[in-house]
Amino acid sequence: MQEQRIRLPELRKRVCSAEHAALWIEDGMTIGMSGFTRAGDAKVVPLAIAERAKTEHLKISLMTGASLGNDVDKTLTEAGAMSRRMPFQSDPTLRAAINRGEVMYVDQHLSETVEQLRTRQINAIDVAIIEAIAITETGAIIPTTSVGNSASFAILADQVIVEINLTQSLELEGLHDIFIPKHRPRREPVPIMSVSDRIGSTAISIPPEKIVAIVITQKSDSASTILPPDHDTAKIASHLVNFFKDEVRDGRLTNSLMPLQAGIGTIANAVMSGFIDSPFEHLTMYSEVLQDSTFDLFDAGKLDFASGSSITLSSQKSREVFNNIGKYKDRLILRPQEISNHPEVIRRLGLITINTALEADIYGNINSTHVLGTHMMNGIGGSGDFARNAYLSVFATKSIAKDGKISSIVPMVTHVDHTEHDVDIIVTEIGLADLRGLAPRERAQKIIQHCVAEPYKQMLFDYLAEAELRGGHTPHVLEKAYAWHTRYRETGTMSEVAGTLKAVA
Amino acid sequence: MQEQRIRLPELRKRVCSAEHAALWIEDGMTIGMSGFTRAGDAKVVPLAIAERAKTEHLKISLMTGASLGNDVDKTLTEAGAMSRRMPFQSDPTLRAAINRGEVMYVDQHLSETVEQLRTRQINAIDVAIIEAIAITETGAIIPTTSVGNSASFAILADQVIVEINLTQSLELEGLHDIFIPKHRPRREPVPIMSVSDRIGSTAISIPPEKIVAIVITQKSDSASTILPPDHDTAKIASHLVNFFKDEVRDGRLTNSLMPLQAGIGTIANAVMSGFIDSPFEHLTMYSEVLQDSTFDLFDAGKLDFASGSSITLSSQKSREVFNNIGKYKDRLILRPQEISNHPEVIRRLGLITINTALEADIYGNINSTHVLGTHMMNGIGGSGDFARNAYLSVFATKSIAKDGKISSIVPMVTHVDHTEHDVDIIVTEIGLADLRGLAPRERAQKIIQHCVAEPYKQMLFDYLAEAELRGGHTPHVLEKAYAWHTRYRETGTMSEVAGTLKAVA
Ligand SMILES: CC(C)(COP(=O)(O)OP(=O)(O)OC[C@H]1O[C@@H](n2cnc3c(N)ncnc32)[C@H](O)[C@@H]1OP(=O)(O)O)[C@@H](O)C(=O)NCCC(=O)NCCS
Ligand SMILES: CC(C)(COP(=O)(O)OP(=O)(O)OC[C@H]1O[C@@H](n2cnc3c(N)ncnc32)[C@H](O)[C@@H]1OP(=O)(O)O)[C@@H](O)C(=O)NCCC(=O)NCCS
Repeated sequence: MQEQRIRLPELRKRVCSAEHAALWIEDGMTIGMSGFTRAGDAKVVPLAIAERAKTEHLKISLMTGASLGNDVDKTLTEAGAMSRRMPFQSDPTLRAAINRGEVMYVDQHLSETVEQLRTRQINAIDVAIIEAIAITETGAIIPTTSVGNSASFAILADQVIVEINLTQSLELEGLHDIFIPKHRPRREPVPIMSVSDRIGSTAISIPPEKIVAIVITQKSDSASTILPPDHDTAKIASHLVNFFKDEVRDGRLTNSLMPLQAGIGTIANAVMSGFIDSPFEHLTMYSEVLQDSTFDLFDAGKLDFASGSSITLSSQKSREVFNNIGKYKDRLILRPQEISNHPEVIRRLGLITINTALEADIYGNINSTHVLGTHMMNGIGGSGDFARNAYLSVFATKSIAKDGKISSIVPMVTHVDHTEHDVDIIVTEIGLADLRGLAPRERAQKIIQHCVAEPYKQMLFDYLAEAELRGGHTPHVLEKAYAWHTRYRETGTMSEVAGTLKAVA
Repeated sequence: MQEQRIRLPELRKRVCSAEHAALWIEDGMTIGMSGFTRAGDAKVVPLAIAERAKTEHLKISLMTGASLGNDVDKTLTEAGAMSRRMPFQSDPTLRAAINRGEVMYVDQHLSETVEQLRTRQINAIDVAIIEAIAITETGAIIPTTSVGNSASFAILADQVIVEINLTQSLELEGLHDIFIPKHRPRREPVPIMSVSDRIGSTAISIPPEKIVAIVITQKSDSASTILPPDHDTAKIASHLVNFFKDEVRDGRLTNSLMPLQAGIGTIANAVMSGFIDSPFEHLTMYSEVLQDSTFDLFDAGKLDFASGSSITLSSQKSREVFNNIGKYKDRLILRPQEISNHPEVIRRLGLITINTALEADIYGNINSTHVLGTHMMNGIGGSGDFARNAYLSVFATKSIAKDGKISSIVPMVTHVDHTEHDVDIIVTEIGLADLRGLAPRERAQKIIQHCVAEPYKQMLFDYLAEAELRGGHTPHVLEKAYAWHTRYRETGTMSEVAGTLKAVA
C-alpha cells in the first residue's frame, strides 16, 4: 500500500494515528481543512481534535472549501472547539450555534477566501489538514473528491497533516488541475479559454518537510442530502427548458447553450436533470459542485464536459460513478474553487448560472441565506461569484415553502444576497419571469404575474398598487414591507386569509 | 479645419445641421449616445431631437455611458421624448420623472450594458450619436473626453451620427485605447497586466458608410458639480490615510498601495485629495471617472499613472488640464467602460476601491442609490463592478445627512446595492471600521462604535441589543428595522430625541 500511497519514502515515517496528528493543533489556531460540499473532507483528525476539546481548552478557527460531511462541523461544535468558521457550512448543529451567536461565522464569496489569506487580510492558516488519495514522489498532495481551497491552504500553512483515504481510488489521479495565481503585481490572466482547458498540475506541490503527519483512513464521503426531483421542481425545469428553446429559436443561443453552472441543493440538481429530456446537445458545465444530475447528463449523452471544484453524490450514484471513474475521467476536471468561481473565467466563458433563492422580492432581489432575515441557513457560497459575472443569471425557487405558510416571493426580501442587477430570470413552478432590460416597476409586474400563486399573487398586486401611490423608482410601503414576515412570526402564516381564519378559530 | 477633423474626404459631404441629423431618429428607436459623467456627451443632436418631440410623437430609449451634461437628459425629458433610459443618470429633472414612474430607468452595472447588447439580450441600438475630436483617414472615430460605451454603440448601431467638437483639442488624439472583447466562444483574456498597458487602438473603427451625418459643434462639456473638500470630508480622508499607513507598517501594502479606484461625487473626490498630503508615493489609478483630484495628485507628484473611462472636471480645473493636456497625456489612458470596469482586470490588478454610500447599515450593507428605499438618486454605476472584485473595498459616507435629521448609518438599509460581503471598510468623519474577517455581530459592534455620532450611536446600540435577544446570525427586529425611516417621513427627523421634542412642541 505505502509504495503507491506515499511515494516519497522519507515521508512514510510520518504516518501516525489521528490522535497523534491532532496534537499539532493548539488552542487559538486557525486550521484550513479540505472539504467542499461534503466531498473530500478531512475525516478523522478533526474528530480527534473534538475529542481533545472535551478535556482541555481547545478552540479553533476553521476554514474549509465549503460544507463538510461526516458530522465534522457537528462534532467540533458540540465539543465546544469551534470559535470561528468560514467561508460556508450547512450543518444543522453548527447552524444553530451560529444563530445563537456562539460561533462567529464569516459567510464569504467562495472565490475570495484564499485571496484574503494570501494578502494576509485575514488570520493566517497555522495547520492545514488535507484529504488525499496519495502523496507523490516529490511530496505533492493528490486530493480526493474535491479541491476547494486545499491547494492554497497547504501552500500557506506552516504545517500540513495529510489524511490518506484508502476508500478513494488511485484512479482519481489526473482528475485535478491545480493552478495558483501569481502574487500581484506579477499576476497574469487565468488562461482558461474553454471549460476543458487544463492549466495546472495534477497535485499540490509543497515542500515535503511541511508534511508533519500522515493519517491513513477508510471513511467514505457522506452522501449528498438532496431530495430527488418532484412535481414542482420538474415544472421549474420545464419552464426553464422552454425559455432556452425560445432563446435558441430567436438565435440568441445555439443548441448547446452556453457553459452551465448550477448551485447546490435539491432545486438546482432537479433543474439540471430537466435537461435530460431537452432538445439541447453537447452541453458543458463550468460549475462549483457536480451533483447527481451531472452524471445523469453524461449518461444521457447530453453533456460533453464538466469542470467543478467537487463531486457530491447520493450514495447510489456515488457507487456507480466512483466504481467506473475511468468512464468519466476524460470529461471531468476538478479545480481550486478560486478558479472554478473566478470572475475572470465566468465572464470570459459567458456562463448561464442557475442558483437558488430562499425568497425573492417583487423587484427581483434575492435572499439565499437568511430565514426571515436573521437566521443563517447555509451561506452565499459561490452564487455571488457566478450571478454577478454571468452571461445570464437565473434564480429558481418554489413559489411557497412550509406547505404554503410562507410565500417565497415577498414584497421586500429581508436580506439581500443578490441585488436586482444580478438577476435576469426568476423561475418558480408557477412560471418564469424574464427581467432582462426592464425597470423595477416592470419587473414587479412580470414577477407577480408569472411566478406567484394565489392568495399571494393578489396580495402582492395590492402591495404594489399601494406602493406605487407613494411613488419612487422602486416603490415600497416601508412600514408594511416586512408585514408578511412579522405575520408569519406571530400567526404561523404569511397569508392574510389563513391568518384571519386562525384569529377567528 | 475639415482636413484635420474629417480626414476621409468622402465623409465631408455628410456634414449637416443638428436638425438635419436628428431626422435619422424615428419614434420608438433605441439610441446609443456618447457621454460618461458629463464628459464627451453628444451635445446638439439630442437637443434637436427634443425640439422635434415638441411637435411630433417621438419617444426614444436612450443608452449612454453614464450621466450626461449640457441638460441633455433634462431637455429630452421635458420634451417628453424619453421613454426608457439606461444605464446611469444624475439629472434632477430626469430623476423626478423616473421617480414618478414616467421614464423606465434600467440602472445597471456599467461594465454589463454592452455585453447585453452584443448578445442581443436587450434591444438593439438603431442609431449611435458619438462626440469626436476627428474622423480618421479610414473613417475611424476619435472620441473626446470620455470613451464610455461609445465604441460598442458605434460598432453595433445601424447608423452613426458624429458630432465633431471643435472646442476639444486635437491633442487628445492618442489618449484613448479602444479594445473590444471577441465574441464568445472565441474570447481571450483582456491583456492588461498593469494600469498603463495599452491594448487597443486610438480610434473606433467602423465601416465609414455607417456614418450618415456629421455635425460640427462648439459646445463645451458641462463642468463637474462636485463641491470642494470640507471639514468632514477631510476627516474621512484622514481616517483612510491613517488606515493605509497602518497597512504599510504591517507589511500588507507597500508605500505605493495598490491601484486606486474612486467613485463619483464630492466625497470620493475629497478622499482622493487626501492623498496629496499623505506619505504614499508612485500611486496609480485604475478607475472609471477621473475627477479634479486625479490632476491634483499628478501635480503633487504623487500619482504615476491614471486609467479611466472619462475626465470630468470643475471649470477651472478643466481649463488648466485641457490647455496643458500634453503635460499629462503620457500618464493617462481613457478606455471603454467595459474595460475600465472589467471584473477580470479589477481582480487581477487588485484594486483598492473607494465608493460612496447614501446609507450603510450596522452589518455593513450599502445603499448607494435609493433615498428612503424608494426614490432613485443616480444609480449603482460602476460601484458594483469594483466593490465585488476589489482587493479591498471601502465605502465612505458622512455619518449624517440633512443637518443631522438623517443618520447615514441605520439599523437596516432600505435598499441594498452592495451586500456586506463586498464591504471591507466603512469610513465616516467619525472614524473607520475595519470589517475584514468579522462575523455580522462583530461588524455591528465595530461600525456603531467607530462610525456613528450621538444620538444615533446609542440608538443603534439599543437596536442591536434588542435584536440580539431575538437571535440569529444577523439579528434584527423586523418590525422596527425601518422605524427610523418612517419616523423621518412622518416627523422630519430620524432622531427620537428631536422627534419627541417636535411632538411636544
Ligand atoms: C437556498 C437553498 C437553501 C435552497 O436549497 P434547496 O435544497 O434547493 O431548497 P429547498 O426548497 O429544499 O429548501 C431548503 C429548506 O429551506 C426552506 N425554505 C425555502 N424557502 C424558504 C423561505 N422563504 N423561508 C423559510 N424557509 C424556506 C425549505 O422549507 C427547506 O426547509 P427544510 O430543510 O426544513 O425542509 C440552497 O440552495 C443554498 O443554501 N443556497 C445558497 C448557496 C448557493 O447558492 N450556493 C450555490 C453556488 S454553487
Ligand atoms: C452616493 C452618492 C449620491 C453620494 O454623492 P456625494 O456627492 O459624494 O455625496 P453627498 O454627501 O454630497 O450627498 C449627495 C446628496 O445625497 C444626500 N444624502 C446623503 N445621504 C443621504 C441619506 N442617507 N438619505 C437621504 N439623502 C442623503 C445629501 O444630503 C446630498 O443631497 P443634496 O444633493 O440634496 O445636497 C454618489 O456617490 C452616487 O451616486 N453613487 C452611486 C454610483 C457610484 O458609486 N458610482 C461610482 C462608481 S465609479
